[in-house]
Amino acid sequence: MTTKFIGIIVNGATGGIATRQHLESSLVAIRDEGRLNVAGEYVVPRLLLVGRNEERLAETARRFAVEEWTTSLDDALANPDYSIFFDAAATGQRKTTLTRAIEAGKHVYSEKPVAPTVAEGLELLELAKARGVKHGAVEDKLNLPGLRKLSYLLKQGFFGQILHFRLVFGWWVFAGDLVEGQRPSWNYKSSGGGGLILDMHPHWRYVIEGTLGRISRLVASAWTAIPERFDESGSKYAVDVEDSTSVQVELENGVHGSIFGSWATRVRLDEPLSIHVDGTHGSAVAGLHRCHIQLLAQTPDVAWSPNVDPSHDHRTDWTEVPDLWRYPNSYRVGWEGFIRHVLTDAPFASNLSAGIRDVMLAEACYLSANESRWVDLREFE
Amino acid sequence: MTTKFIGIIVNGATGGIATRQHLESSLVAIRDEGRLNVAGEYVVPRLLLVGRNEERLAETARRFAVEEWTTSLDDALANPDYSIFFDAAATGQRKTTLTRAIEAGKHVYSEKPVAPTVAEGLELLELAKARGVKHGAVEDKLNLPGLRKLSYLLKQGFFGQILHFRLVFGWWVFAGDLVEGQRPSWNYKSSGGGGLILDMHPHWRYVIEGTLGRISRLVASAWTAIPERFDESGSKYAVDVEDSTSVQVELENGVHGSIFGSWATRVRLDEPLSIHVDGTHGSAVAGLHRCHIQLLAQTPDVAWSPNVDPSHDHRTDWTEVPDLWRYPNSYRVGWEGFIRHVLTDAPFASNLSAGIRDVMLAEACYLSANESRWVDLREFE
Amino acid sequence: MTTKFIGIIVNGATGGIATRQHLESSLVAIRDEGRLNVAGEYVVPRLLLVGRNEERLAETARRFAVEEWTTSLDDALANPDYSIFFDAAATGQRKTTLTRAIEAGKHVYSEKPVAPTVAEGLELLELAKARGVKHGAVEDKLNLPGLRKLSYLLKQGFFGQILHFRLVFGWWVFAGDLVEGQRPSWNYKSSGGGGLILDMHPHWRYVIEGTLGRISRLVASAWTAIPERFDESGSKYAVDVEDSTSVQVELENGVHGSIFGSWATRVRLDEPLSIHVDGTHGSAVAGLHRCHIQLLAQTPDVAWSPNVDPSHDHRTDWTEVPDLWRYPNSYRVGWEGFIRHVLTDAPFASNLSAGIRDVMLAEACYLSANESRWVDLREFE
Amino acid sequence: MTTKFIGIIVNGATGGIATRQHLESSLVAIRDEGRLNVAGEYVVPRLLLVGRNEERLAETARRFAVEEWTTSLDDALANPDYSIFFDAAATGQRKTTLTRAIEAGKHVYSEKPVAPTVAEGLELLELAKARGVKHGAVEDKLNLPGLRKLSYLLKQGFFGQILHFRLVFGWWVFAGDLVEGQRPSWNYKSSGGGGLILDMHPHWRYVIEGTLGRISRLVASAWTAIPERFDESGSKYAVDVEDSTSVQVELENGVHGSIFGSWATRVRLDEPLSIHVDGTHGSAVAGLHRCHIQLLAQTPDVAWSPNVDPSHDHRTDWTEVPDLWRYPNSYRVGWEGFIRHVLTDAPFASNLSAGIRDVMLAEACYLSANESRWVDLREFE
Repeated sequence: MTTKFIGIIVNGATGGIATRQHLESSLVAIRDEGRLNVAGEYVVPRLLLVGRNEERLAETARRFAVEEWTTSLDDALANPDYSIFFDAAATGQRKTTLTRAIEAGKHVYSEKPVAPTVAEGLELLELAKARGVKHGAVEDKLNLPGLRKLSYLLKQGFFGQILHFRLVFGWWVFAGDLVEGQRPSWNYKSSGGGGLILDMHPHWRYVIEGTLGRISRLVASAWTAIPERFDESGSKYAVDVEDSTSVQVELENGVHGSIFGSWATRVRLDEPLSIHVDGTHGSAVAGLHRCHIQLLAQTPDVAWSPNVDPSHDHRTDWTEVPDLWRYPNSYRVGWEGFIRHVLTDAPFASNLSAGIRDVMLAEACYLSANESRWVDLREFE
Repeated sequence: MTTKFIGIIVNGATGGIATRQHLESSLVAIRDEGRLNVAGEYVVPRLLLVGRNEERLAETARRFAVEEWTTSLDDALANPDYSIFFDAAATGQRKTTLTRAIEAGKHVYSEKPVAPTVAEGLELLELAKARGVKHGAVEDKLNLPGLRKLSYLLKQGFFGQILHFRLVFGWWVFAGDLVEGQRPSWNYKSSGGGGLILDMHPHWRYVIEGTLGRISRLVASAWTAIPERFDESGSKYAVDVEDSTSVQVELENGVHGSIFGSWATRVRLDEPLSIHVDGTHGSAVAGLHRCHIQLLAQTPDVAWSPNVDPSHDHRTDWTEVPDLWRYPNSYRVGWEGFIRHVLTDAPFASNLSAGIRDVMLAEACYLSANESRWVDLREFE
Repeated sequence: MTTKFIGIIVNGATGGIATRQHLESSLVAIRDEGRLNVAGEYVVPRLLLVGRNEERLAETARRFAVEEWTTSLDDALANPDYSIFFDAAATGQRKTTLTRAIEAGKHVYSEKPVAPTVAEGLELLELAKARGVKHGAVEDKLNLPGLRKLSYLLKQGFFGQILHFRLVFGWWVFAGDLVEGQRPSWNYKSSGGGGLILDMHPHWRYVIEGTLGRISRLVASAWTAIPERFDESGSKYAVDVEDSTSVQVELENGVHGSIFGSWATRVRLDEPLSIHVDGTHGSAVAGLHRCHIQLLAQTPDVAWSPNVDPSHDHRTDWTEVPDLWRYPNSYRVGWEGFIRHVLTDAPFASNLSAGIRDVMLAEACYLSANESRWVDLREFE
Repeated sequence: MTTKFIGIIVNGATGGIATRQHLESSLVAIRDEGRLNVAGEYVVPRLLLVGRNEERLAETARRFAVEEWTTSLDDALANPDYSIFFDAAATGQRKTTLTRAIEAGKHVYSEKPVAPTVAEGLELLELAKARGVKHGAVEDKLNLPGLRKLSYLLKQGFFGQILHFRLVFGWWVFAGDLVEGQRPSWNYKSSGGGGLILDMHPHWRYVIEGTLGRISRLVASAWTAIPERFDESGSKYAVDVEDSTSVQVELENGVHGSIFGSWATRVRLDEPLSIHVDGTHGSAVAGLHRCHIQLLAQTPDVAWSPNVDPSHDHRTDWTEVPDLWRYPNSYRVGWEGFIRHVLTDAPFASNLSAGIRDVMLAEACYLSANESRWVDLREFE
């Protein structure tokens, strides 16, 4: 087979997710293995790193043996050897940056959120369509083992008719006084684009709609459980975004569900993400990595009585879905799909429309919480 | 000490809860032990059973060595030897029955719901006040071990500031075709006064308000997961009430919570009832019998990563609250409290007002689900 | 950022603690990482090693790639490139050595004890104040993981009101005949400045006062459990200092405690150091590395009966405080603090005053044991 | 063999320890087995129960099939069929009651304390000697399995030379507000003869002197950790006696030891009673039931270092002393010994002198704590 190169600009190359997931685990790994088979050709990424801090950028380039890097976004976009532009830089510049890349004729792939609002996202989409470039949005969670197992169950018709689901997510993020917080302080400031809903609910959009069905309406609450935190330098700051939320959703297929998320909860479920789905023929509880099921034929006659011995461990009534596949890095799955999409017109679900709908869920949640009412997602269309 | 008798009419004496909990575990047990100490006297219940099916009534009376029983409610109410009237008969007749008992001058104690609507409950309360009789409502769940442990934690200030809670309840009730349903068919028919909300949410009212705080407003969804079931005779029937529900609540103290309940869910939590409460200093997960805690100093630094070994069992980061008390039957606790209240004016929190507020929660949930909106509980006052 | 050097004389550089903890884990590590950030500058230690045995000194210097070393303390003190003098040499010369260093205008940092008596320590402190040099004492134990966890609990108010504590310390130090002793023979000779109290109780001073409260008075016993030992050359010698001690203490806040220490005890507790603290709301047992807690809500109803099944493992009623921080070497924490103190006037709790109070506790124990009476620490002020 | 009866008056027969230990597990068991072999004869106790509450006394007598009982102490003492008088009634009447029994010519056996003070105990002893009656004091703990194993080790010379010991005792006695206290409220009131030292240290006297050696002097602290408790009726009361204490002791053989006791401590040791004894050849940790040992040849080279892996479980370096005997009830051992002593002049260590020395230890502790000084036990002789 022949080998060809595909030029990819990585903007914001020195950030944590960019280096760890998009470079090390995805693009650099594909490059170094040299064997991404696209329609009978081996395709190898050629990378151009872009960032603002020259020292850190040089260090990142050296670490990954990338020869080309620049602090000039203009220079990068002007370089005709690179047909794909990937943006993982700070979200505040996202729309401006993507607009410039599209106008430069690049195919664009974007970390989430693809835009701060649905309206701005739709402008980007219009522009991309007008310029005829391809587009994609990072939607990595569906490729995680636990959610692939959930998809596997759905493809088998395991559930019979799906009845309802409960998604619970979060863990205890230390306030930063006695123990250092596990997440950066910008997550807790509106000036930094923080907020749990904006950060996480775009994921739950494609996870839910990619498995259980399209969301029709929702009602959300949002609150700030821990109103004061301490930043990376140990200084106290006020949290002015929500760190906790509860949402009821209805799907177009009539299924009811709920989403709970918090950075101030302690985990007793199987994993920090837990999606419990009940169906007529069986139920599943999926996390990031694992998935447990209980078939109708396994379903016990649960006793509810003040007199009953409480020592039964209900988890013993469930079975684990085995590891049946190789699970490549979930970001790499996205990259391989997007590269194929660019080179061959293979369909790619995680496009800008999908990324915009991810933002839409967050936006609908905020609207619902602010106005204390149910919000129909069609209001945004 | 001297011994005296107190006459108690038990209406609906042949029903499951009446025989198992109110007779066997409570009134008959108190009678046979003969030592309920009320203000220095031993008080012994003298029972008069009332029911509709003469044969079953006679059998129940024989089983519990009760000499007096009748199928005539009129005769029972006319008998001056019995000062307390307890109603555990079908809820459809509740208001009529209690009205007659109050008019006959009896102190009334009632299974839940004390009335089908708040408005009718308030009429009963007015009547009871006018006639000067004492009144009580069965609110047994707070006396269960798991919830007593939760109260124990609250009294210690274990939680620091309470942040939010999630109450999850239910199990799989078989449809009745392949496996017999574990609950009577009237639970699934509006004509029988069925519906999960009407059945269970009155309990969650006093459980939540008796521990975490007074509810201010809520938004509820209700649906029917299993629309066809099979009754005690094997006949198929349509379920015309909800068997599943999801509710978001806000407490007056600002705490947010959610209540999920379903007769069509499979249990993977510790118990079929699970109340997860997060606080600044610690979290607890309480069930009927057990309660597990994780305090701040035990709280781990939870990892969330596609790369992390998923085999950690988060339950090992929690510890169990030990069994520190004798747990008398939870219904018996109610009976002893009501008898003391009747004889000595000792305070009794579970009175008709409480029972009416229990109904109010259910009513507010229905209103919210029907009108797809938040409902403030003060609308009912 | 700019980089600058700070000159540090390490006296007694070939001793065990000096090479292992002060050089390898602290000063050499800081030097090789080259990034100790002090007020916006990178500070790098430049070392001058001083010792008595030329051969061993040369070997130590070579091992740690230190270019400058000398056996002449005079030459070292006369060298103006070195502003800090650290003394880890034998304690018998401590006061003389530190006096000379202060008089030479050096900032002094000292291994414990900073002086053989409180009175001599106060003379040193006067001198240091008069000369305007900065001063510090090695107090490393509070930076160990187990004790940081104890501090973490205290900051949370975990204990409620502290009731009492028991500190147990020690292990079996072989006599040196059949198995080589794990500690040098001078520890067991008054001529070498030996004695368990003088060696260890200075630590317990800052550990106790740095966590539980200021000590007001004490009564001590001291004895020699193993009166004959064998030295490094296999020769028998008489132990003329105590190797075991028991002390009762009272804190100014009214808390009672006890300290047991022995080089002739066998360890069955969690660690060779164990501090059991009981409080109204919870108890903790902290060691060097780990810390276990039992809070009120976890506290079981312990049975004490000849008839009770004795197989219960009480340790299962406790939970471990998780590892939530990076734990740098505890000596390095001290060095970084002292260097910052010298360069920027940042506060440094472990100064000569603290080091003198450490000696004071030892001195008070000896006085109490010798005179068989309670000793008030204010007698020393 | 022939069978003969021995008459025993049991005064205070309805109390908890009297019924459970002295009657059910000891005297009634001996009677019902009918085979206590004393010098070739079977001896069977014939019992006369004495108490103040006629109803409870009758019930106790019925329960144990004892035919004779009375509420009149005079009648009992006047009955010549009963040669032994046992007193388990309230301690406030002890001296008066025993005096009357001795004057009535009965052999006396007494629960602890045999007298409220040493001085009063010595008067009793004088009287018993003058009247020529035999006398005994209940000292049950030495007969418990764990302490028998300790005696077994001592008899073997297991320890080599004993070096020192630490006795730790106690557990968490709930204050009675949230959880019922496990001990009666009189234990916490001076008016009821309460106080941990008076209650428990008489036991430690015969335990220590019966195994390790005679106590020469001590210094004690005593304090009240929990100053408010709730009594059996739920009423709050002030605790006016100590509930916690720490004592240093020296034995005549030069061994140093410490005793810690508290009703406000949480148990992490093997048992609520733990006696750690170190000797040159081995160490032991004995509890009520079990005993673990570490021989010199098993003694590990314990590491003490900030760098060492802390996960070693030191308990794995110890071995358990196996159960090598039948362990009869510890109170029954006392009864069999006293009956033999009365009938055959077999020696009986637990006589009134021993019981008085038990009281002496408590008295010396109070004197030491009150006067903040060392107390020599010879001061009491």
